[in-house]
Amino acid sequence: MKTKIELIERSYLKQAIDKIDSDLILVVVDSNVWQIYGKEFEAALPKNKSFYLYKSLEGEGTKCFEEFERGIEFFLEKGIHRKAHVLAIGGGATSDYAGYLAASLLRGISWSIIPTTLLSMVDAAIGGKTGLNTRQGKNLVGAFHLPDHVWIDRSFLDTLSEDEIKSGMSEVIKYAFLNEEVRRLIENGSNLKDIIKACADAKEEVVEKDFKEGGLRMSLNLGHTFGHAVERIYDTTHGEAVFWGMALIFKLFQEDSSKYLEALREFSEKLNVQFGDPPWLYKTFPVDKIMDYLEKDKKKSSISSVKIIKMKDFGEFASEEIELSEIEKKLEDNKNELKAFNF
Amino acid sequence: MKTKIELIERSYLKQAIDKIDSDLILVVVDSNVWQIYGKEFEAALPKNKSFYLYKSLEGEGTKCFEEFERGIEFFLEKGIHRKAHVLAIGGGATSDYAGYLAASLLRGISWSIIPTTLLSMVDAAIGGKTGLNTRQGKNLVGAFHLPDHVWIDRSFLDTLSEDEIKSGMSEVIKYAFLNEEVRRLIENGSNLKDIIKACADAKEEVVEKDFKEGGLRMSLNLGHTFGHAVERIYDTTHGEAVFWGMALIFKLFQEDSSKYLEALREFSEKLNVQFGDPPWLYKTFPVDKIMDYLEKDKKKSSISSVKIIKMKDFGEFASEEIELSEIEKKLEDNKNELKAFNF
Repeated sequence: MKTKIELIERSYLKQAIDKIDSDLILVVVDSNVWQIYGKEFEAALPKNKSFYLYKSLEGEGTKCFEEFERGIEFFLEKGIHRKAHVLAIGGGATSDYAGYLAASLLRGISWSIIPTTLLSMVDAAIGGKTGLNTRQGKNLVGAFHLPDHVWIDRSFLDTLSEDEIKSGMSEVIKYAFLNEEVRRLIENGSNLKDIIKACADAKEEVVEKDFKEGGLRMSLNLGHTFGHAVERIYDTTHGEAVFWGMALIFKLFQEDSSKYLEALREFSEKLNVQFGDPPWLYKTFPVDKIMDYLEKDKKKSSISSVKIIKMKDFGEFASEEIELSEIEKKLEDNKNELKAFNF
Repeated sequence: MKTKIELIERSYLKQAIDKIDSDLILVVVDSNVWQIYGKEFEAALPKNKSFYLYKSLEGEGTKCFEEFERGIEFFLEKGIHRKAHVLAIGGGATSDYAGYLAASLLRGISWSIIPTTLLSMVDAAIGGKTGLNTRQGKNLVGAFHLPDHVWIDRSFLDTLSEDEIKSGMSEVIKYAFLNEEVRRLIENGSNLKDIIKACADAKEEVVEKDFKEGGLRMSLNLGHTFGHAVERIYDTTHGEAVFWGMALIFKLFQEDSSKYLEALREFSEKLNVQFGDPPWLYKTFPVDKIMDYLEKDKKKSSISSVKIIKMKDFGEFASEEIELSEIEKKLEDNKNELKAFNF
């Protein structure tokens, strides 16, 4: 099984949806996206199929148990069957949620995604990780469930806020570290459409080799170990948190840290995006809270250690199992320097 | 991946649990089972591993969204990691629930089962179907997630009620129709231990060939299409409902119905179990309600039809796609006869 990823134009939307091999489409759309694009989607839903339309709560709000139950019961009450197909329309939160519905309804039905944010086009929509947030952290409950199709229509970005573009750009930058082609395109100043497709393909390639994240797929967590903590503590966007999560990894765990911090700055400039100051600058740097989140990180493979992703070289990563106590010490030792860290 | 199914003696329990390849065991045990066997299990939990103990609500009560959330948050709060292992102890409801927790925690961790009811030993614990009940019907949300080990200790049956034994026996009878070895053992009056193992092996064999129920595994639904409706409408045990579900299929959809109804009686006698009168005898036979449940059956593969499982011969099944309207007509035409049906 492999996801078919296609760049499309808006005018092609109808034909795309028509490709879904099912007589019943369960549309899960971000309510905010529906408000802007509802009419267009309505026109694009092929007349020869049945549809049920579920407007999910905007953004991350939908990724909770209560909404999970509500979505499941909504579709079951309408009456569905095993060949019904979920179509997620929205950003990463919507596809995480809709994909988990698809993975769970009747123990799993097929699904596809039309991502509407940069973050989801380059990362969240690819690879079949689905799930909900819990009291203890993000995405700690869910399923691996590959979508059949991802249709990327770049023009959805026209209505995105600057913050959302920035959030997506940090995942683009992550792929610049991990993938030669993405790095080459960014350095050559290629257009965003090609960069988006290269990121999506880069991710798909990794996922195909390591669906359940036994090894290679872990590389995609570059910046995420600390990122998830930063996101929660400072209430940043996911992308901004990943950006600073990468900075923390490079700064604290990378011998040749200046090389990678320099690249972080360079890629941002090339992509014309500014991340400004780290969220903790001149604030407290709460080591205990960060450790609290690390302890609940699902990448942990034992009680007392966590795997972090470092760079070996551009395009090459290394994963390292580090004792939580060692990480805590490193954060403590550097916290004063980090409070003033900028670049 | 394959589940390792072993018959064990109580004295072997400790060694069995010790085989689990993890330093952290998340025990999910039916609260009723814990009340009876708690001390024994406590003694059997190896000292070199960590344990968190979650007592789930007794029986089907645990298979709801609320309990799903409670179980997930319980274990996340304790702090778990990807190599943590769920151990389900109880009947089919407990393993359905615990297996769904295992499938969902951190997007899937490994699990094993110690079934404590006859029904779960011969059927529910084997094959990795997990899930919850919904307002619209049983098991309409869940995951396919194979357990690593199933340890069958027949002596748990000593504390089972007669109703629960009867419930399990009807699945044994189902396997007598589907599997030559089970039929042979029953006809020869073999001991229950061997019959249980043969049923579990029969199911495992089917599941291995067809995990996601594309074809062969459908045979295991013999009696279940109407069974689920009977279970809900008349509030019977699962097994009793499956027994009468088989009777309905044979009576209404099988040309050589007397041959299979006769066998149903014969297997019951050999196994020394009496199902008495059908639950609808001398009552109304609510065709509309039955159709309501069929329409929500997850085996449906289109909006207007459902696949039913019939016998071709002993050990051979046939699946047939039948229009819901045709089933309704058949039930209507026969409802007066069914009201008085007995054998």
